[in-house]
Amino acid sequence: MMDEERSNEKCESVTLSLMSEAVSAPTECEKRVCVFGTGDMGRSLGLRLLQAGYSVMFGSRRPQSCNFLPNGAQVLSHAEAAQAAHLIFIAVQREHYDFLVPLAYHLKGKVLVDLSNNLKKNQYPEANAEYLQSLVPEAEVVKGFNTLSAWALQNGPSDANRQVYICGDRAEAKQVVLAVATKLGFSALDRGSLSASRELEDFPLQLFPLWRLPMRIAVGLTAFFFFYLLIREILYAYITQGKDISFRIMVSLANRVCPIVSLIMLALCYLPGVLASFLQLYRGTKYRRFPDWLDRWMLCRKQLGLLALGFACLHVLYTLIIPIRYYVRFWATERTVTQIRQNGTNEFITSRAWHSDSYLSFGILGFGLYVLLGITSLPSVSNALSWREFSFVQSKLGHLTLLLCTIHTYLYGGKRFLSASLYNWYTPPGYMLCLVLPSVVLLLKLLLVTPCVDRNITRIRQGWEKGADQRNSKNNKTLVL
Amino acid sequence: MMDEERSNEKCESVTLSLMSEAVSAPTECEKRVCVFGTGDMGRSLGLRLLQAGYSVMFGSRRPQSCNFLPNGAQVLSHAEAAQAAHLIFIAVQREHYDFLVPLAYHLKGKVLVDLSNNLKKNQYPEANAEYLQSLVPEAEVVKGFNTLSAWALQNGPSDANRQVYICGDRAEAKQVVLAVATKLGFSALDRGSLSASRELEDFPLQLFPLWRLPMRIAVGLTAFFFFYLLIREILYAYITQGKDISFRIMVSLANRVCPIVSLIMLALCYLPGVLASFLQLYRGTKYRRFPDWLDRWMLCRKQLGLLALGFACLHVLYTLIIPIRYYVRFWATERTVTQIRQNGTNEFITSRAWHSDSYLSFGILGFGLYVLLGITSLPSVSNALSWREFSFVQSKLGHLTLLLCTIHTYLYGGKRFLSASLYNWYTPPGYMLCLVLPSVVLLLKLLLVTPCVDRNITRIRQGWEKGADQRNSKNNKTLVL
Amino acid sequence: MMDEERSNEKCESVTLSLMSEAVSAPTECEKRVCVFGTGDMGRSLGLRLLQAGYSVMFGSRRPQSCNFLPNGAQVLSHAEAAQAAHLIFIAVQREHYDFLVPLAYHLKGKVLVDLSNNLKKNQYPEANAEYLQSLVPEAEVVKGFNTLSAWALQNGPSDANRQVYICGDRAEAKQVVLAVATKLGFSALDRGSLSASRELEDFPLQLFPLWRLPMRIAVGLTAFFFFYLLIREILYAYITQGKDISFRIMVSLANRVCPIVSLIMLALCYLPGVLASFLQLYRGTKYRRFPDWLDRWMLCRKQLGLLALGFACLHVLYTLIIPIRYYVRFWATERTVTQIRQNGTNEFITSRAWHSDSYLSFGILGFGLYVLLGITSLPSVSNALSWREFSFVQSKLGHLTLLLCTIHTYLYGGKRFLSASLYNWYTPPGYMLCLVLPSVVLLLKLLLVTPCVDRNITRIRQGWEKGADQRNSKNNKTLVL
Repeated sequence: MMDEERSNEKCESVTLSLMSEAVSAPTECEKRVCVFGTGDMGRSLGLRLLQAGYSVMFGSRRPQSCNFLPNGAQVLSHAEAAQAAHLIFIAVQREHYDFLVPLAYHLKGKVLVDLSNNLKKNQYPEANAEYLQSLVPEAEVVKGFNTLSAWALQNGPSDANRQVYICGDRAEAKQVVLAVATKLGFSALDRGSLSASRELEDFPLQLFPLWRLPMRIAVGLTAFFFFYLLIREILYAYITQGKDISFRIMVSLANRVCPIVSLIMLALCYLPGVLASFLQLYRGTKYRRFPDWLDRWMLCRKQLGLLALGFACLHVLYTLIIPIRYYVRFWATERTVTQIRQNGTNEFITSRAWHSDSYLSFGILGFGLYVLLGITSLPSVSNALSWREFSFVQSKLGHLTLLLCTIHTYLYGGKRFLSASLYNWYTPPGYMLCLVLPSVVLLLKLLLVTPCVDRNITRIRQGWEKGADQRNSKNNKTLVL
Repeated sequence: MMDEERSNEKCESVTLSLMSEAVSAPTECEKRVCVFGTGDMGRSLGLRLLQAGYSVMFGSRRPQSCNFLPNGAQVLSHAEAAQAAHLIFIAVQREHYDFLVPLAYHLKGKVLVDLSNNLKKNQYPEANAEYLQSLVPEAEVVKGFNTLSAWALQNGPSDANRQVYICGDRAEAKQVVLAVATKLGFSALDRGSLSASRELEDFPLQLFPLWRLPMRIAVGLTAFFFFYLLIREILYAYITQGKDISFRIMVSLANRVCPIVSLIMLALCYLPGVLASFLQLYRGTKYRRFPDWLDRWMLCRKQLGLLALGFACLHVLYTLIIPIRYYVRFWATERTVTQIRQNGTNEFITSRAWHSDSYLSFGILGFGLYVLLGITSLPSVSNALSWREFSFVQSKLGHLTLLLCTIHTYLYGGKRFLSASLYNWYTPPGYMLCLVLPSVVLLLKLLLVTPCVDRNITRIRQGWEKGADQRNSKNNKTLVL
Repeated sequence: MMDEERSNEKCESVTLSLMSEAVSAPTECEKRVCVFGTGDMGRSLGLRLLQAGYSVMFGSRRPQSCNFLPNGAQVLSHAEAAQAAHLIFIAVQREHYDFLVPLAYHLKGKVLVDLSNNLKKNQYPEANAEYLQSLVPEAEVVKGFNTLSAWALQNGPSDANRQVYICGDRAEAKQVVLAVATKLGFSALDRGSLSASRELEDFPLQLFPLWRLPMRIAVGLTAFFFFYLLIREILYAYITQGKDISFRIMVSLANRVCPIVSLIMLALCYLPGVLASFLQLYRGTKYRRFPDWLDRWMLCRKQLGLLALGFACLHVLYTLIIPIRYYVRFWATERTVTQIRQNGTNEFITSRAWHSDSYLSFGILGFGLYVLLGITSLPSVSNALSWREFSFVQSKLGHLTLLLCTIHTYLYGGKRFLSASLYNWYTPPGYMLCLVLPSVVLLLKLLLVTPCVDRNITRIRQGWEKGADQRNSKNNKTLVL
């Protein structure tokens, strides 16, 4: 107790300023940062810096004529601002960098952070940051913060846009920027030397890069099956029986294409995983890279799956509105009328009821799981899952979904698989074509989960290597985790 | 190699404690923080502080009688605790601040963090933090952490509640609190002087502030169209033909109101953007603020859109259950019966099939995109999008959705637009009224995307100003980014 | 101005390196960290450390034979690496820890971070970290980072996996690891002494722990009601009337079970809250722990609700496909036919239309709110809500949903409650059974919101205690916040 008292006394004497020093408060000089450019980006950045406890100066050509600047910030001429701080953010468009040349003297040894972005890729021969460096060779140019929007800067970092990427040639300069980024609440990643800045400048310009391939596949499949069915059903009916059933394009045809594309894409989403396992089995190791095409394929599985889900949703909607269609309502009535006119009776076929109901039921359950998969692939949800949980959902439930949907399609076909009448112009109906791939995937998966194969896979995944001698394999094992 | 060896030797000698110093471990004295109040909030905060490596003391009136305190924490009397630490968190309700007055001497120069919240806005004349400061004038009161829930404190900061807002009059005091917040894993924002604390105290009390306006609009529109249709359809039928079709209120009427409101609100969600563009065109600059009403409107576009989506979903559900309704089933049968009794035949009208199918098809596609927009506006999803991707989805796809839904509605109207019979009591049917706004928005948007107009807009967005002389405009350009 | 000039001059003189020091850049020696094990985990960690500005050395048994290592990293022998750095990450499987024993001398006083995980719980007698400590007693073992996936390490921390848990016996060692974790952008939590490492090692192995109980309940209820209805409807029909309506299992039966289970689980999700309130009322305090079973129950309310939502969705789908079923279409035709044959007429009953429509309408509105609740329980959405907003949605809207769904079910029953004919084998139909619990919950809730009761609850929630004398209660009040 006695001694605690003393320590307390000690505390009493510590002065506040001392304390705030201790918590690594930046010194007067680093606390001063400068922002060139008072556009949206510059202003937002300045505001944020102020809020993080920095004293901010804006460098402007006409200090007196700047509006909307966050209060608390000084506005100086470019030259004054350049002298006043060591860290200078350049929030100016590349076309106007030349105004920095006359300031070269003041910028000597300063850290210039290039925030600029371009309107399109390869707009200029070299990256903006490299161009800036060439203009003021004696300054330390660091590329960074350009992936953030002014909005993100103002509203504080949220999950995805917490990442700040920086690159530059001098380690100390990067350290400074990195530290500021951290103080602003971002987590900064060093992406190497200034030559990488081109890459950083392309980030904000990319438009769904991962969705490109899946999108192309989706469009391709849709187009193919649309015309395939158009020909073998509507054209066929028109040519052979002279019937005009073109109106079916809007709903009936769409409702054939959607499920077909959806099922195929779902299969495409699980095929690469299966292939990869077989490749590992064949090679007997997990330490060799997959061929590029397989890597790329595996990277866009999520997108494939989500597009497949989209088509599945359309299929469901198209199916549910069936009874509202004029066409359907009309023929329902007609059937009744004719039946009465012919005074015929048709009795209830239980087997058919079984068939239609189970077909629908499998579809519903499959779709339910489908949606579940979609939900778990939302960033916030998948982040909340442990790795084991995620793989359970995406692999186990995923294959179950594929199984249910495949059964659903087989049931849809029902007995019809046999009736030759369906093979208009000797072409198989769409649902038969779309069943090929899923069936293959399911069969391969079935092979993989057979105990003996499964054991090998597991061993390999844990780092075991085929034909590795004792010492060697042991050593490899040590590398596993 | 040689020299690396040396540096290694050097390392050997460094002692651990030294290392941990180097990584700016707080000194004995700052490591000690004190928490007054052992309620949920106090306990959670204490636990979190302990986990972050602080030594925590709770100040309590009856130290011996405190339960559930996180183990590792000391419990002292208020006076002892006050002496023991420099940073004191006040997790006590405002009504009981008076217990601090006798401690004033010990609190001299200490940093008091006021965590309190009120039960309703303007409950007290001045903010709790200001009241606290008035009680212990010689302490440094900082307002902060009050926007966090005890739950968020215990479970560690997740995306949205990583933000901690602090305000206070003394910079050093704020630095200390800011540093602690950072150590706890929060990103703290300085919101200015203590006079801003009222604002911070109102944060946790606000109930969907951004949803107010859209909600009012939704309710207003719903009420209006409900009564409008009630009168011109149900009342009309009752008065003119004496038919009681009141039962239609439950489904038919609801299914008229929902799509109408949904479409209008979707249009309202894209109108402000269009207006803003025209304003910029007219003014020839982007550097002048928009009128307040437009700003407010633009800020709640997301909410408008989501409400519109809600109504669209209801519309879909109401439409899909149509065939299950007794009313519908009944009349379907009746039609067949009468047709047979009159021995009449009605033949199949392809054009009608086309019409009904395409009407449904456009609805489905529109709704599909609608939902897609909704999903991309989930925080976690929109955060994961680059700015360009987000604007692509929200602007391009958004207007496409509006277009599809408008076509859907036009097709619903079909030829009926002309038939005078529909204008009961000279009032147009609801779907005509709701088509006005979307059509206007689409037309204006069409104007904006015409090359010549588009070019001007783009130039303005890049900072060009109408009638700005060379030097001036250049200067402005420099401010753009 | 004059004096600002001076301060500027002062700045000029500061050298960059000095600055980066000031922003607490680690010294040469701490900047050096070592990673044992070059598997996925080791490599990802190494890469991340490099990006955060550390100089990384990999320790490997055969330095020359390591592939895919992030460039910029050195590869040394274990011994060299061990000497070179103070902080050593052990990314090696437990089976191979023995290779550390010969290095014991070099590891003296070093900080070893154990990243290992096991394949299943209780795989080994003691935790890996404790085993490691026993192997190299003179090193400072810290358990941590094991909850992260290699993937999370490479792609930078996102919302949920920002948390890093560490535990160890020596405070300084933990400080070092904690600091590194922070530099890597994670928020580290100290989970106590090394004896807690078993717990940390179990984290990645858990599979939806919170979903277990709700899942069991769901499965149990589903099974019970499935067989209950199977017997009293399908078996009953078969035995008493010899009719085979087994096909109904697929859709009709499923569509009975789903809504029943959904409603009961929704009630189960709001029951504990009501019970808790009554318990607090009865005890007259909020400062006593709830019985464990109640705590556990309250913790899995979200999961209960989401499962209930899942069943509700299935119910909706099963309902919407009704008109497509062969069975339904068949009987619709039959009804018409018989009606005509008997030349009978059936007139339209408005009351029935009212009944069927309002039954459907309540269902739709209930389901709409249901989905809304589901959406707000997405992590990213609920994080974005203030506590007041969240409780408003989950409590107010939640009970409203329950109310609507209960009314929906009552209306479904309609007049039939009275008709004895339904009580096959003296058993009540399913929807009656499932109405019991919701009705009870709603009644209790109704009691709680009556002014007098509500006032007491509020007082207790604010810390008031029954029969507490002045000083006592005041003291407790002070603990409230």
